[in-house]
Amino acid sequence: MDRENLELRSTISADGALRLHLEPAVLPEPGPGQLLVRVEAAPINPSDLGLMFGPADMKSLAQDGQALTARIPDGAMPAMQARIGQSLPVGNEGAGTVIEAGPDQKHLLGRRVAMLGGAMYARLRLIEAKDCLVLPEGASAEEGAALFVNPLTALGFVETMRAEGHKAIVHAPAASNLGQMLVRICKADGIGLVNIVRSPEQVAMLRELGATHVVDSSTDSFLDDLTEAIAATGATLSFDAIGGGEMTSTILNAMEAVAARSMTGYDRYGSSVLKQGYIYGSLDTGPSVLRRGFGFSWRVGGWLLFHALQRLDPATVERMRQRVLAEMTTTFASHYIARITLEQALQPETVAAYMRKSTGAKYLLTP
Amino acid sequence: MDRENLELRSTISADGALRLHLEPAVLPEPGPGQLLVRVEAAPINPSDLGLMFGPADMKSLAQDGQALTARIPDGAMPAMQARIGQSLPVGNEGAGTVIEAGPDQKHLLGRRVAMLGGAMYARLRLIEAKDCLVLPEGASAEEGAALFVNPLTALGFVETMRAEGHKAIVHAPAASNLGQMLVRICKADGIGLVNIVRSPEQVAMLRELGATHVVDSSTDSFLDDLTEAIAATGATLSFDAIGGGEMTSTILNAMEAVAARSMTGYDRYGSSVLKQGYIYGSLDTGPSVLRRGFGFSWRVGGWLLFHALQRLDPATVERMRQRVLAEMTTTFASHYIARITLEQALQPETVAAYMRKSTGAKYLLTP
Repeated sequence: MDRENLELRSTISADGALRLHLEPAVLPEPGPGQLLVRVEAAPINPSDLGLMFGPADMKSLAQDGQALTARIPDGAMPAMQARIGQSLPVGNEGAGTVIEAGPDQKHLLGRRVAMLGGAMYARLRLIEAKDCLVLPEGASAEEGAALFVNPLTALGFVETMRAEGHKAIVHAPAASNLGQMLVRICKADGIGLVNIVRSPEQVAMLRELGATHVVDSSTDSFLDDLTEAIAATGATLSFDAIGGGEMTSTILNAMEAVAARSMTGYDRYGSSVLKQGYIYGSLDTGPSVLRRGFGFSWRVGGWLLFHALQRLDPATVERMRQRVLAEMTTTFASHYIARITLEQALQPETVAAYMRKSTGAKYLLTP
Repeated sequence: MDRENLELRSTISADGALRLHLEPAVLPEPGPGQLLVRVEAAPINPSDLGLMFGPADMKSLAQDGQALTARIPDGAMPAMQARIGQSLPVGNEGAGTVIEAGPDQKHLLGRRVAMLGGAMYARLRLIEAKDCLVLPEGASAEEGAALFVNPLTALGFVETMRAEGHKAIVHAPAASNLGQMLVRICKADGIGLVNIVRSPEQVAMLRELGATHVVDSSTDSFLDDLTEAIAATGATLSFDAIGGGEMTSTILNAMEAVAARSMTGYDRYGSSVLKQGYIYGSLDTGPSVLRRGFGFSWRVGGWLLFHALQRLDPATVERMRQRVLAEMTTTFASHYIARITLEQALQPETVAAYMRKSTGAKYLLTP
C-alpha cells in the first residue's frame, strides 16, 4: 500500500521569514481506532489562512522552487514567538475516502468520511475514527469537506443565544457560507436574525434564501436600517467575524438606541439591557474600536467554536452533529468558486486570489 | 422648622446649552420612614462630574449671574437626547445630620447619617431612612460622606473576583481613593493585586500603604513590570476606570503573555485562559481600543456598582455594608484636598480645579 504523503507546512523563522512548503513523509499503518484517509477535498477557511500566512506582508510573496516565502513585519513578530521554527501542518477540516483501517475499523474501508483535526492540506491523513463523520453512501467529497467548522459554528451561535438568554442575533458579515447557513437555520427555527452585508448583490442573495432582515453597510441609511431591524427582532447578541474596526461597537450602539426607547427617564449609566457582542473571526486583524455610547451594561468577547463546544452540554453537541449530517446537502451546503491542487496552493497568483477573503469566494483544495 | 432648600441642578437644552444652577424649593415634612437631613459633606466623584457637565466643552464655561453655562459640542448631542430639558439634581452620596424625622423615625433625630441616592449637592435632603447608614456617635460628616460609592465598589471588585473564579486583580489607575481602599482590602484579605499608577510619587504612596505590586505606566519598563506582576499574582481579571484608550487592551495582552509561558505548543487561537477586563469608569470618554493579541478567550465589559449589587447575593451585600461601617476610619477613609460650598461649586475657577480629575485630588462639598 502506498502511504507516501505530501503535507503542506507553514514555518516562521526567528528572523521573520515565512516559508510554506510540501513536506514528504511515509505514514505508518493505521493502528486500533485509526483510519488512513485519502484527502479529496478541504476548504480554505479564513482560520486556515491565519495559520498559513500569519501576519505576513503579502506584497513580499515570492516563489522559491516549489516553496513559497514571505516576510513577517518586525512589529508582528512578538506575537509569533510561540511558533518560531515549528513546521506546522495546515487545514482544519476535509473529506476523503478510507483506504486503510485499523484492525477494529475494517468496516469503514472504502467509506467516505468528513474529518476535523488539522493537517488536511495533504494527500493522506492518518486520523482517529472518532474525529470523523461517516458520510451517507453516494455523498461527494465536496459535500463532506466543510461539515464541521461552518455548520457547527452557525449552530453554536444559536445554542449560545439560547444558553445566554438572548432572543435574536445580529451577524456580520452575513453573506459568507457560514452566514447563509445561519439564515437557513434561523428561518427553520423561527429565530430573529439581522444580517449585515456589504453590497446590494448580497442583500438580494440573502433575501433569495429567505432572510427577513438584511441591512447593507454600504448605504447611507445603514445605521437607521440596522437600528430598526434590531428593534423588530429584539436582538441583544451579535457575532462579528471582522474583529478589527467598529462593527461590534456600531451594533452595540444601535442595540442601546433601541433599549433607550423604552426607558422612562434619563440614566447617565445607560440602559440596563445587557448587550453582548462576540468577535469570532479576524478578517481585519487591526484593533477593535469601542465607542462606548452604550452605557455600562455590555460585554464584548472572543468566541471560538472549540471553546463553545466544551461549554455546551454533550447532548446538545451530539444533536448539532446529527443535524449537520441530516441537512448536509441543504442547510449546510457550501459553495466554492474554484478548486485547486496542493501545488497550485503555493503559486503566488493563486494565493493572491484565495487570500482576497471576499465573501462567498471560497476555494476548495482537492489534493 | 426651616425647610427651605437650595439644590444644584444640571440642565441641557435642545440647542446644546448646559446650565448649572441652584434651585430653591421648600421641602415637605418627612413622612413615615423618612428623614430630613441637613447635608454637611458630599464628595465630588467622577460619576457626579459626568452628570453635572456631561460632554460639555470646558473651555466654554461662563458665569451667568449665580448660574454657570457651557456648550455641548454638536457631535455629543445625540447621546444627550434622553436628558434634554430635564433639570437633574446632582450628588450621588453624602452625609449630614437628621433635623426632622417621620413619626416612626424620631429615634434618629440629631443622629448623623451617610446617604446614597442622588441630589446630595443641596442644603437639605429628604430621604428614606433605609437609604441611610446611621453613623457611630462622634463620627464626622467628612468621615461619613463617601461610605457608599468607593467602599462598595472596592468590595464589589473583590466579590466579583470570587464570584467569577479569578484569584487576583489588576487595577488602573490605582492611586485614587478607591484604589487606596482596594490596596487595604486586598492586603487584609490576602488577595493578589497589581496596582497600575502614573508617577513615582504614586508608587511610593501605595507602597507606604502596604501594596506589593505597583507598576508605573510612565516608565519604559512598564510592560515588563506589568507582565511580571501579573505572573507573580496570577491575575486574570482587571478593573479599569479610564475606559478610553488602550489600558484594558494592554492588561489583557500582558495576561496572555503570562498564559503563553505555560503553553506546550503554538495555538493560533491563543491560550485558553479566560482573561476578563472590566471598564468601570470613563475618565477618558474616548473610544476603547482593543489590540487583540490575546487570542479568543477574553471578555471586556462594563462594570457598574448598582448592577453588581443586584447580581451579588443579599447576604454578601449586607456583609459589605457592615464592613464599611466597621472600618470607616481605616480601610475606607477618604482624603480631600479642598472643601467648597455650593456657591463655590459654580465658580469657573473652582470648577476647573475639581474637574482636573487628577488622582487623589478629590474635592468635598460642604453645603
